[in-house]
Amino acid sequence: MKVGSFGETALIERLVGSRRPGGDGVVLGVGDDAAAVAPSEGMLALVTCDSQVEGVHFVMERTSPERVGRRAAAVSVSDVAAMGGEPRWAVAALAAPPDAELDELEGVFQGLIEGLEETGAALVGGNTVRSGGGGISLDLTVIGEVRAAELLTRGGAAPGDLLCATGELGGSAAGLLALESPEAGIDEGARRSAIERHLEPRARIAVGRVLATSKSVTACIDISDGLLRDAGHLARAGGVALRIDAERVPLSEAAIGVGRACDRDPLELALSSGEELELLFAVERGAAGELVERIERETGVAAQVIGEVAGGEPGVCVLRDGVPIEPARSGWDHFSANR
Amino acid sequence: MKVGSFGETALIERLVGSRRPGGDGVVLGVGDDAAAVAPSEGMLALVTCDSQVEGVHFVMERTSPERVGRRAAAVSVSDVAAMGGEPRWAVAALAAPPDAELDELEGVFQGLIEGLEETGAALVGGNTVRSGGGGISLDLTVIGEVRAAELLTRGGAAPGDLLCATGELGGSAAGLLALESPEAGIDEGARRSAIERHLEPRARIAVGRVLATSKSVTACIDISDGLLRDAGHLARAGGVALRIDAERVPLSEAAIGVGRACDRDPLELALSSGEELELLFAVERGAAGELVERIERETGVAAQVIGEVAGGEPGVCVLRDGVPIEPARSGWDHFSANR
Repeated sequence: MKVGSFGETALIERLVGSRRPGGDGVVLGVGDDAAAVAPSEGMLALVTCDSQVEGVHFVMERTSPERVGRRAAAVSVSDVAAMGGEPRWAVAALAAPPDAELDELEGVFQGLIEGLEETGAALVGGNTVRSGGGGISLDLTVIGEVRAAELLTRGGAAPGDLLCATGELGGSAAGLLALESPEAGIDEGARRSAIERHLEPRARIAVGRVLATSKSVTACIDISDGLLRDAGHLARAGGVALRIDAERVPLSEAAIGVGRACDRDPLELALSSGEELELLFAVERGAAGELVERIERETGVAAQVIGEVAGGEPGVCVLRDGVPIEPARSGWDHFSANR
Repeated sequence: MKVGSFGETALIERLVGSRRPGGDGVVLGVGDDAAAVAPSEGMLALVTCDSQVEGVHFVMERTSPERVGRRAAAVSVSDVAAMGGEPRWAVAALAAPPDAELDELEGVFQGLIEGLEETGAALVGGNTVRSGGGGISLDLTVIGEVRAAELLTRGGAAPGDLLCATGELGGSAAGLLALESPEAGIDEGARRSAIERHLEPRARIAVGRVLATSKSVTACIDISDGLLRDAGHLARAGGVALRIDAERVPLSEAAIGVGRACDRDPLELALSSGEELELLFAVERGAAGELVERIERETGVAAQVIGEVAGGEPGVCVLRDGVPIEPARSGWDHFSANR
């Protein structure tokens, strides 16, 4: 069945109406002019929006409608995690051509709603419109909450702090590479895990909460544009220089496996890979060891020191054996252009 | 200059960075992973999103970038007005093709920011992406606030209540008709005022506040899908039948003038015209007269009784001299299909 045969109200009812959220603080969900939610007393509201556009952020043939929805949820929720908050509510704006399959849109919304619910957030409203051309596109606004005293920002890194990252990097770029290189002799395990990482990244909410309550983290950002570019954002926001040790950048097994088969340097993949949704943060030097341990103990996620914060001209430098290297690929180029 | 030559971060900075909001409760605006705002104690947050898609909601040659932005602001803010609230914060997701003119996008954001600021709201965040095809599209999420006791919903109309509407209707549909009929012999004043109404509707925030504090309004909705369809939403949400007196539907001079020149019944225009952004509400019978006076006195906006609420099968009926009539045009068709 094509969505063109549905009116807007009927479509929204169909996509989200059967799953009216009973989430905390939801006074009024889908079905009125606006949703009404009850913010927690004394908390700041965090507001962020992101888009998933067919043909730009995903190709439907290479993923599934559910995964498109889950990815949209993860990408927006990750911004809340990077501020130290917890996601609470979301509204989605869907644009679809009249000949879009209803099944497909239902799948997108099922993935979206599940992806949000797993992080504690409820979809409370939506809007559907006919797209002006091209495929479907999904804009998701997520509202989270955080105590003012626990708010993590991009600014605040100070010379002497250590720079840390969670998880392993490069998997998302490796996954895209694997999808685009079906003929390459990629180890099956590496291929699967890279593609999984690319299509279904996970936001680090629990880690964000540990950082927010640590009292020692001075700046934080999620890795959505690639380690180098996001480090650049952190450097500029804090007015500091960041030094990343190439040897300490945690390379994912998937990036190593796919990189080997496709003749790509795994470090380059790790430096440029976007939508990893790991957290990059600066922490007071004396507190780093204990914090890294606490993250692993409380969330099961590995974290490691990958460099340090210095004074001087804001920017990012990658060192191997203490000598600056210039990575060749796009992550770096973009970053340079933006610096 | 084309936007394709700008990175995403640089583009957002260019579009909104120079006008960082200093609005009430804005702790952190554009430039971090999420905006941080401070909700007022004890208030509910109202969350709503709407889209303006080029080629669907507007044709750039017939409007201006600033008006596209102002219209996007008005349409979303109107949903907050219909709930009785005041708009506070907004985030915008913009999709644009790489060959979009930077000037045009700057105009859209200027109109958007101004339109929001006039209603007391601040743009606190945004996201830009390459569109998957077609022109530009703008999704706007607005967050408003309202006291729980003052929340107006679509449900709640009870048999015996009177049905009222603000302003005059039909102007927006007449404006579209005028834009599409440059050759028609339309009176110049009617043409201008209809087009103005179509391209730059205004949200009724002050009226919404009067309704919210009246203690006698039982249900409210903004007229964005057309009087008949929106009355249908109100009828279904409240489980009531609505009777609208054709003679009492306030026809705009523009609808009368354009309708006459284009051989269209102004009543049909008034019943089907979307994005009027007037408010349609039910009020306890005994309080209606005083409320209508209060609205006019406190906001300068006319309001009138246009019908009444009855029991029975939920639906909407339009009567002329007490006899049901069936309007011929699309507003009605859409509504029937949705009922």
